[in-house]
Amino acid sequence: MKTILKQGILATAIFATVAFTTTIARAADPLPSWNDGPAKKSIVAFVEKVTKAGSPDFVPVSERIAVFDNDGTLWCEKPLPVQLFFALDRVKALAPQHPEWEDKEPFASLLKGELKTAAAGGERAIVELMMATHTGMTTVEFEQIVKDWIATAKHPKTGKRFLDMTYQPMLEVLAYLRANGFKNFIVSGGGIEFMRPWAEAAYGIPPEQVVGSSVKTKFELRDGQPVIVRLPELDFNDDKGGKPVGINQHIGRQPIAAFGNSDGDLQMLQYTGAGGGTRFCLYVHHDDAGREYAYDRTDHLAKLDKGLDEAAAKGWTVASMKNDWKTVFPVAQSAITAIDILLQPDATMLKHAAANNARLFKAYPKGFALVRPPRKKLGLEELRICGRPHGHKEVSDAQEVYCSVVG
Amino acid sequence: MKTILKQGILATAIFATVAFTTTIARAADPLPSWNDGPAKKSIVAFVEKVTKAGSPDFVPVSERIAVFDNDGTLWCEKPLPVQLFFALDRVKALAPQHPEWEDKEPFASLLKGELKTAAAGGERAIVELMMATHTGMTTVEFEQIVKDWIATAKHPKTGKRFLDMTYQPMLEVLAYLRANGFKNFIVSGGGIEFMRPWAEAAYGIPPEQVVGSSVKTKFELRDGQPVIVRLPELDFNDDKGGKPVGINQHIGRQPIAAFGNSDGDLQMLQYTGAGGGTRFCLYVHHDDAGREYAYDRTDHLAKLDKGLDEAAAKGWTVASMKNDWKTVFPVAQSAITAIDILLQPDATMLKHAAANNARLFKAYPKGFALVRPPRKKLGLEELRICGRPHGHKEVSDAQEVYCSVVG
Repeated sequence: MKTILKQGILATAIFATVAFTTTIARAADPLPSWNDGPAKKSIVAFVEKVTKAGSPDFVPVSERIAVFDNDGTLWCEKPLPVQLFFALDRVKALAPQHPEWEDKEPFASLLKGELKTAAAGGERAIVELMMATHTGMTTVEFEQIVKDWIATAKHPKTGKRFLDMTYQPMLEVLAYLRANGFKNFIVSGGGIEFMRPWAEAAYGIPPEQVVGSSVKTKFELRDGQPVIVRLPELDFNDDKGGKPVGINQHIGRQPIAAFGNSDGDLQMLQYTGAGGGTRFCLYVHHDDAGREYAYDRTDHLAKLDKGLDEAAAKGWTVASMKNDWKTVFPVAQSAITAIDILLQPDATMLKHAAANNARLFKAYPKGFALVRPPRKKLGLEELRICGRPHGHKEVSDAQEVYCSVVG
Repeated sequence: MKTILKQGILATAIFATVAFTTTIARAADPLPSWNDGPAKKSIVAFVEKVTKAGSPDFVPVSERIAVFDNDGTLWCEKPLPVQLFFALDRVKALAPQHPEWEDKEPFASLLKGELKTAAAGGERAIVELMMATHTGMTTVEFEQIVKDWIATAKHPKTGKRFLDMTYQPMLEVLAYLRANGFKNFIVSGGGIEFMRPWAEAAYGIPPEQVVGSSVKTKFELRDGQPVIVRLPELDFNDDKGGKPVGINQHIGRQPIAAFGNSDGDLQMLQYTGAGGGTRFCLYVHHDDAGREYAYDRTDHLAKLDKGLDEAAAKGWTVASMKNDWKTVFPVAQSAITAIDILLQPDATMLKHAAANNARLFKAYPKGFALVRPPRKKLGLEELRICGRPHGHKEVSDAQEVYCSVVG
């Protein structure tokens, strides 16, 4: 009971313990959740090539741009993309103001909980649904709606929060690239303003590095206060050939690495792979019905068919979720365990921590800055409780780690 | 003659000497080209406020977003915006393929060199001109056309390269903000793909931090090679109310500092100024007919009228080009002088260099990384010939300085 009462206060510390464990593991192996197979080897070989000074494959930091699809590449997109669940909850919330929805598709099906029927209406139904639920408010209001929803929304099958169904192996790829000077961008068919409110916490990707589909918006003064209003009109569909277009518009450079999981990402991989020099393209292949879902050539919403053929023809990496990934989702440590560890580190844990620390120093002989001046340098005891939710933010001297020291 | 032959080889060195001088100056005063007046004081006060840890005005690095208009704010826009001169040269280059232009406006006037007549056609004529000269090619082809042109194109009155008519005081503001953890973005009515090819060299602003007007583009495979084709249709007009819209689309955060020079920037300043916490808005006021141009309330292309009133009402900073700026354009050092200094540093210069170096170490007691490992640390002799064209790239541990060591 006492422990439960402490949960709120110690939330930072709980996540931090997980973060600490992750950091320790990465010092020895940047991709600990990947099995030692050709996929992992290809990622490491690429990063080592382009970061080796003096090598003909060397790429300056400013050109180390990596692009990631989101749904199905960085987090689970089945049975339906998360944004559709969001839209459904918005439909429910807004239904009292729209009695006409009872007889109008896709709203009628959605209100009855028939998601697949609603989705069967195809792209047009989805666009209509998005416009009705995602527009009419200011960007600030929409951001708050998304933040409130994503904080608690759960997957219908696993009961986990959607935010806890990001892919641990891909989080490691993001961190590994970031630690090697890459700027990671999301390039997703999902809504740009649906992803931005949580992408930084989940993936370490700031708003200005999120590219996605968008609605038109309009600047207005309301009682003298500037606002940006979301209009019910599609502005940009960031899918298929739209992905290279979005990359050119937002980034203005050809990426050197691209990660996707469906034919909707094919043009992004083609565009990335066709540049001069060393390039890296990877498809996440969903072949793990046991731990996640299995779908590819015949899937309706996220078909991977042409992409598989082109990957084979061009030698792109295909990561088998079943064979290449040790774990799929981040390990959710029990809050009580974490608190106990935090409050009462026993002799064994202190010994492990010392050993891990020695390993860290072996890997980084000069150490690395955890905090920027004027924040103080942290000792081992403090490091343990320092980090971010999910522990996805890579520790490097180029980045800040925000620390909350408890106790 | 010998000196001229060496010019090509030593180009890096020439610029570098200028860069060195600039860096030295900045160590003592971040804004040496600004007179000590209220404008300069307001900039420094803002930066010190938001970077002071523990203060209620402190802003985390991730939220230190600054936005800059380009034409008239970062470089000269008179007698016409530079991009119009580019369009004119494109018209001349393309004219042989378009005999119909002889009788068609705005092309006919442009071909006769009557720029003002052409511009009098207003926005519609400008859009038509842009579509005819800026589209139909791939993005890669267009980038090369811009790069080739901007490398040598000169201002009709001063005979200087347009690239040498950036504003030295504003380059110092960019560098000062960057050194204080800010991410600077251009938010310009100019073409996004017209600015990107040179914005990094001129301002230290990478392509992904350039927001501008754009045409629609399309992804295509040409003989199996992915290309992005520029289409003759306006996609986005990044002016007036479009500026906050572009900021929201590209950056996804409200900036905390904004710099402009016309009513076309007013909404951007309103949007920036209206956020919570400490905000900074500055108008560059062109009141210096002697050293540049004088124009404001009645100008046709870059009117500053409502903006002046709102600045007064809201307490925004208005920087008088005449009174607040010691110099307007970067000092162009004679190539021959620079080479002589480089090759034959005399006793006086070495003494100055030693004194400057001592000042640098006083300002940065721990030194600062000029290069990232595994590049070697540079000594004073090498520092002198290390830098970038114009010397606008700020030296800080968060950024790389690319060095070419000569000799």
